[in-house]
Order: sequence, then structure tokens, then C-alpha cells
Amino acid sequence: MTVENSPPGSVRPRGRTERVRQAVVAATHAQFRAHGYPSLTVERVAEAAGVAKSTVYRRWRDTAGLLLEVLREMSGAQIPLVDTGSVDEDLRQLAVSIVRVYSDSENGPMVLAMIAEAVHDPRVADELRAFWRDRNENAADAVRRGIRRGELPADTDPVDVIRTLAAPLYYRMLVTHEPVDETIATRAAAAALAAARAGALDTAG
Amino acid sequence: MTVENSPPGSVRPRGRTERVRQAVVAATHAQFRAHGYPSLTVERVAEAAGVAKSTVYRRWRDTAGLLLEVLREMSGAQIPLVDTGSVDEDLRQLAVSIVRVYSDSENGPMVLAMIAEAVHDPRVADELRAFWRDRNENAADAVRRGIRRGELPADTDPVDVIRTLAAPLYYRMLVTHEPVDETIATRAAAAALAAARAGALDTAG
Repeated sequence: MTVENSPPGSVRPRGRTERVRQAVVAATHAQFRAHGYPSLTVERVAEAAGVAKSTVYRRWRDTAGLLLEVLREMSGAQIPLVDTGSVDEDLRQLAVSIVRVYSDSENGPMVLAMIAEAVHDPRVADELRAFWRDRNENAADAVRRGIRRGELPADTDPVDVIRTLAAPLYYRMLVTHEPVDETIATRAAAAALAAARAGALDTAG
Repeated sequence: MTVENSPPGSVRPRGRTERVRQAVVAATHAQFRAHGYPSLTVERVAEAAGVAKSTVYRRWRDTAGLLLEVLREMSGAQIPLVDTGSVDEDLRQLAVSIVRVYSDSENGPMVLAMIAEAVHDPRVADELRAFWRDRNENAADAVRRGIRRGELPADTDPVDVIRTLAAPLYYRMLVTHEPVDETIATRAAAAALAAARAGALDTAG
């Protein structure tokens, strides 16, 4: 089966484009799982997805582009941004979701492979920067709600609270290779909130 | 020139072993700088260092072992652990030193390459884990002194303060690809101290 992608600017129904995207995401997952990052190729993904190679090249360019599509999909589906009415609980759940994604034997290694790739490939680094800028901006809405409810100081930098929460988890996974679990996630969220409440994460910084 | 390493258990003077080590560290630096990680080989390093290949293989095993030797050297020389009499100032200087190492156009990329390698190679991950365990234990002495002076709560987890300080710097460099500088380092140290003072980094966690 070959599914054609819509040409740029076309007004074709969104359904086909979305079906192509889903097939490509699923095929990238499967190829990564079966062969690992070094063997991942656009050709293999296109064939496994039943999509023309030219479509995959045009829309995702290379394997880095494919992995980033997977990252977006994974992030949206598996790190839900909750609104419990309490910034402490919203951030605790966010930290726990991050740990869960990386504990997943399929998704975790794929995201870590992308992070490693970005060390050597400035294009991947640029894409990760854009991805996390959007992601952390969205996650920061929980902090903004907390500020409005008076749970955090008015001059708290919302995105910096998210960075401070997430950073110890990535530090353990990437740098010190120490374990992460829900207890550590809960502690990371509490430490970020404590720093914010002490004024150490204000917008002046 | 070929410099022989001392066999295990020998009582030969330490001088020759140390000279070999220094030559190998310098050659690893030079080879990495000239050709990058993918082209780094034990053979090239041995030749450039004027050391027998068998010596390099026996003592460092492979390129991961060579990079870790460089990491140890770099860490000791360039991230000095100061004792200013104030935990706030000790930790601020530690954070600033970390940023400086990674801003260095030679050392920074080498350490990041090792971190990327560890994502795919469990042996490198094990070595990094051991390296940072020692390193963070030593750095935590500044926190222990602060606890003794009453600058931090008695039940503060010293190593966790170091992790919390370092994590946002690595998070920016590796995950979000956002800039780091001395202002951000100072802020990371202050946030870790604020979290510790609020009791969020106690040993119960």
C-alpha cells in the first residue's frame, strides 16, 4: 500500500495527511524497536509504513525528523498536562509522567537516543530546542494558574519552575546514571516549588 | 619514543606511570580536537602519545576508557572545590566552574560526547556513574561544612544539593539546548540552597 501525502498548500481533507503521519510514527517506533537508532533509515520506515519514500523525505527529511515526530506524539499522549486546582499536585503529576515516559522500555530509549544525537548534530539540537520551548511553555500554564491563585509569588518565572522540576530527572538519566522513580519525581517537583516560594526562581533571574 | 607502563603490582617509581598517563591524556585531547569522537582510536592515541598500543589497551581498554581518564583530569583541574567559609559562595563558585568547563571549546564537547556515548554504551554509563558518584560526594563537602556551620538544616542531603545545583545546567546543555552562563549558574546554586533551606532536600527523600 502506498499513501500519498498532500502537496503543500493543498486543501485536501486532513484525514489522509493524518493517516500518513500515524503510519509513519508507528513504523518509526517499530523500526527503532527492532533495529535501534543506528539502523533506522527513511527507506525502511517508508517501506514499513507503506508510504512513498519521497513523501517521507519531503515531510520529515531524515531520521532526526522522524524521531522528532515521534517525540511530539509521545509527549502529547504520555505527559498530559493536568489541572487539578493545586499547583503542587499539577507539578507532582507532571514530574511523575516524565519518569513514566522514560521508564517505558520503548519510548524512553528513543527519546534518549534523540538527545544523544543532538550532541553531535546541530539540526537535531535546533529541533529539540524548539520542541522543548513549546512543551515547557505549555507546561508552565500550571505555574501561571498557581500564581493567579496566590500559591506562588507573583514574580515567579513560570518556565523556570518547569525547568527546575524536570532537570534533576534528566540529570540522573543522562549524566549520573542514577535511578529515577516516582519518589524522586515527587521530590523534584517539591524542590522546584520550594525554590519558587523562596523567590529563587523569579523573573529577574 | 615508546614509554612502557608498569605491570600491575610493580613497585617501580610512580613517575613513569604518571608520565605515560599525561602523554595519553594530552594525545587523547589532541586527537579528539583534530578528528572528533567518531575517529578517535586507541591506535592513534598510542601513536601520538609515543606509548605502546598494548599499554594503552591494558590500562584504558578502549576510547571510552581514554575519555574517562580525560574527564577525571579535567574535573580535578578545572572544577576546583573551594572552601570560602560560606556554603552560598562555595556552591556559587562550583556552579560557575561547571559552566566554564562546558564553555571551553575543547573540554566541553569532549564531555558532552562522552555523555552521548553513555546513552548507547552501558559500560560508559557505568563509568560515568562511578565518576559522578565520587565527584558529587567530594563536592558535597561544601554542603556538609555549611550544615556544621548552621547555614543549612541538619538533615539536608548533601549530595542532593549538589545534584540540584548541577542539574539545571546539564538540562539546558543536553535537553533544551538553551544557553548557560554565570548568571544562570548563580541562579541554579541559589535555587538549590533555597530548596535545601525549605527542607525539600532532606535525607528522608
